[in-house]
Amino acid sequence: MPSREGVTSGGLRARRRRETSDRIQQTALALVSEHGLDHVTVEQISTQAGVSVRTFFNYFPSKESALADGPPPIPDHARAAFLAGTGDVLADLTTLFVAHGIEFEARRSTMECFHQVLRDNPRLMPLQLQRFHQFELDVAELIGARLGLDDDEDDTARLAAAVVLAAVRVGMERWSRDFDVSPAAEVGRALANLRSLWTSLVA
Amino acid sequence: MPSREGVTSGGLRARRRRETSDRIQQTALALVSEHGLDHVTVEQISTQAGVSVRTFFNYFPSKESALADGPPPIPDHARAAFLAGTGDVLADLTTLFVAHGIEFEARRSTMECFHQVLRDNPRLMPLQLQRFHQFELDVAELIGARLGLDDDEDDTARLAAAVVLAAVRVGMERWSRDFDVSPAAEVGRALANLRSLWTSLVA
Repeated sequence: MPSREGVTSGGLRARRRRETSDRIQQTALALVSEHGLDHVTVEQISTQAGVSVRTFFNYFPSKESALADGPPPIPDHARAAFLAGTGDVLADLTTLFVAHGIEFEARRSTMECFHQVLRDNPRLMPLQLQRFHQFELDVAELIGARLGLDDDEDDTARLAAAVVLAAVRVGMERWSRDFDVSPAAEVGRALANLRSLWTSLVA
Repeated sequence: MPSREGVTSGGLRARRRRETSDRIQQTALALVSEHGLDHVTVEQISTQAGVSVRTFFNYFPSKESALADGPPPIPDHARAAFLAGTGDVLADLTTLFVAHGIEFEARRSTMECFHQVLRDNPRLMPLQLQRFHQFELDVAELIGARLGLDDDEDDTARLAAAVVLAAVRVGMERWSRDFDVSPAAEVGRALANLRSLWTSLVA
């Protein structure tokens, strides 16, 4: 069954790429935390991460982009389940972002290290914002595919992504004030509140 | 009638403060555009804006903060009308942000100059983000006051502010891609779409 084999090896390759990418990022963050952004080179990061400079540039276009830590990708299974859903879109989005919250939790130590690097190097901020913006466009595409919308003609999908991610952000902010709670639970709660909010806003 | 007199002179004082603040900001932006952030001092900005250094620091805590251009304040009349409203909250928020879009339009040349300065000096970005965050908290307070919510106990108002500002941002992005349309009209349209969005999201 070639399609299944394709999916499996594709999944394995994707996982290996992710592991290499994570190793390069963690190495870059550790070096920059210790020596400062201007005193670390791509050569040093590559050597310490055990990859060639050529491989480094297959993963990241620059030293700075190896550090930036935007939202983690949405897990493939969660993405597929959302696209296949047929019921309440907001409920399915909640399931999707609860899975995403679990990804966040898994990346917590990398995120904490990156936020310290970001405080020391505000020039990384535009790159970081660009990642968030790209993530929002990806979510818009996903919502557009689910609702059968053409995003070029209509900005319903863009608007839905912006609104849902606003709720996700409120949940994540609460998590960042109290790391004892789970990001998945806070995001789920914020999206549930989004549903009840509507009755307060519309007469 | 002391209260009316109070309101009038308060309004006049607020307008004069705003004019001084705008003059300092425009002077700072012009100087920094020409000479670069590191080559402009508070003394130069003050002299050229016709204020003392002491006055400068009554308005802005630093050179950087005189440049940053967050969302303009919501006009007092729009704020008062929103708080006095009793009907559909989303309709009244639309009126509020349409008035705010008109403020944006009025500040367009300052904004364009600031965005160029921001591109050249990404270290201003965190300050700018802080302004947006503060604006969101102000909007949350306004919504909380209208709905009679205690924001410490409940994040409905925070969530409502985040969601509504997400829609405002989608409208403003459309404006920034096509300056021929009006920001007030685009913001109004995005908030109208927010209403119809709901029927797509909830079964």
